[in-house]
Amino acid sequence: MADIRAENIAKLIEPLRVKPGTRVDLGEDFDPRYRAELNKREGIELLQRGVALLAEYQERLAAQDTYGVLLCLQALDAGGKDGTIRHVMSGVNPQGVKVSSFKVPSVEELDHDYLWRYAARLPARGEIAIFNRSHYEEVLVVRVHPEVLERQRLPQHARGPKIWDRRYREINNWERYLTDNGFKVVKVFLNLSREEQRIRFLKRIDLPEKNWKFSAADVRERRRWDDYQRAFSEMLSATSTRWAPWYVVPADRKWFARICTAAVLAHTLMDLDPQYPMVSEEAREDLQDARHELEGEGPQGTAAGP
Amino acid sequence: MADIRAENIAKLIEPLRVKPGTRVDLGEDFDPRYRAELNKREGIELLQRGVALLAEYQERLAAQDTYGVLLCLQALDAGGKDGTIRHVMSGVNPQGVKVSSFKVPSVEELDHDYLWRYAARLPARGEIAIFNRSHYEEVLVVRVHPEVLERQRLPQHARGPKIWDRRYREINNWERYLTDNGFKVVKVFLNLSREEQRIRFLKRIDLPEKNWKFSAADVRERRRWDDYQRAFSEMLSATSTRWAPWYVVPADRKWFARICTAAVLAHTLMDLDPQYPMVSEEAREDLQDARHELEGEGPQGTAAGP
Repeated sequence: MADIRAENIAKLIEPLRVKPGTRVDLGEDFDPRYRAELNKREGIELLQRGVALLAEYQERLAAQDTYGVLLCLQALDAGGKDGTIRHVMSGVNPQGVKVSSFKVPSVEELDHDYLWRYAARLPARGEIAIFNRSHYEEVLVVRVHPEVLERQRLPQHARGPKIWDRRYREINNWERYLTDNGFKVVKVFLNLSREEQRIRFLKRIDLPEKNWKFSAADVRERRRWDDYQRAFSEMLSATSTRWAPWYVVPADRKWFARICTAAVLAHTLMDLDPQYPMVSEEAREDLQDARHELEGEGPQGTAAGP
Repeated sequence: MADIRAENIAKLIEPLRVKPGTRVDLGEDFDPRYRAELNKREGIELLQRGVALLAEYQERLAAQDTYGVLLCLQALDAGGKDGTIRHVMSGVNPQGVKVSSFKVPSVEELDHDYLWRYAARLPARGEIAIFNRSHYEEVLVVRVHPEVLERQRLPQHARGPKIWDRRYREINNWERYLTDNGFKVVKVFLNLSREEQRIRFLKRIDLPEKNWKFSAADVRERRRWDDYQRAFSEMLSATSTRWAPWYVVPADRKWFARICTAAVLAHTLMDLDPQYPMVSEEAREDLQDARHELEGEGPQGTAAGP
């Protein structure tokens, strides 16, 4: 697997894909330390080549200007979202990449439907958009903290215990609509073990230059670990679809999480297989006229001056 | 100059800076083939190190979350804007970089003041924004093509021959306001010779995989070469300020244009010298509480379970 051919990429990520219709139990079904028998040295070399591949496909995606790609990244705190984006996407032309992070919603955002602020950040045709956290927060943090749902000002009939199943369905329909209109959606969950989160938190406390990345609220969220695992498991079960699959990426080893995320994106782009546009017969005639004019100027470039 | 220390970067770009208050004559004052006695091999190596430097400063800029940086890129067609962005900014974390291209304005954009659509794409604090074409189009293409101004629906009193001087003043004031509020503005004009544009156009016509980058309209615009040179010269004279300088980057050699653009951006970031934030005394006590809780869990991570 020191090779980045399409079939090898597909083979690497296939065990991570949540099969539509299966019931996921995160604790049982996915091992955060899995590494496909790769070692770190191989992994780092593979990532370099993967990034070069992504850069090439991004260029063709932009030139073709027909499809857009959305990668949603979800994880618990210290799951490695920021580092994954930095390592996977640095090297790709930022002109074609749009990264959006979703923080605490503004009053204006809360006054709209819950998908509104995510829709505003979708990729244009030719673009890759990365959501650092995504609309899936609406069935994760909002579910674990009902007081957040309270702030969303839902009418009475839209509340109640069926809200989560309804949101899963609404999200699936939205992603289906996007896919059918040329916007491919893929979703990566960086699956961190409880022990590895503890180690990473302690490191952020111990190293002064990492202190700013940590707040006491992170430990409070950690106390809800089991609630989050349940919310993630249900979400993965309900929203991994044929058109917009979830990949559960083992995240205890950062280097492996990065290769897998790059591979998921590369797999998506290779599947779209974007091509440089060919110009029409008519446009080609215009090009020949333009050539004659330019050649007529001669190398001093004076003949066609105003 | 195989060294990327701050003083060398400053020395490289100083001859390219338009001194505030001077009258620029593009054809006379700046040579599109200037290369500071560097050769291509040195240049490519230098760019690699420059990009690594930019990546490091961008990380600190984002962590500090106090300043934003806006780089405006202007050039004639085939001046190398897209390639410069790709080569200078690939390698920098796209999470902190936002590239905006400005195409033909929409009806909604035309119904606003002329700076509106540019203001909407400004960097946030901690971000670098690149404008691929910018608000300077409003005194360039709009000046060369008065029919574009006609579409902007200006009231009668806002029209007339004084409009360009007024726009220069308005733009200077706007950039001054941004600077005073923590958003640093720098401006790069990629200065291409007429002959080099001819050569690049012919290449786009001759190579089928480059055809899509070329349209007959590009040759029509080229016929207005002298008008554009005059509009550029006046703009550079009127809007290179102490707080938001213009750099005229020689663009006939792509590799040199890229180093210079990277150097302008690096110079700006080094001048801001962003630092990782230090946490407050109080926050540090919270961190210690968090540490005790995490250490109390022990390596199995069960003690604090819900």
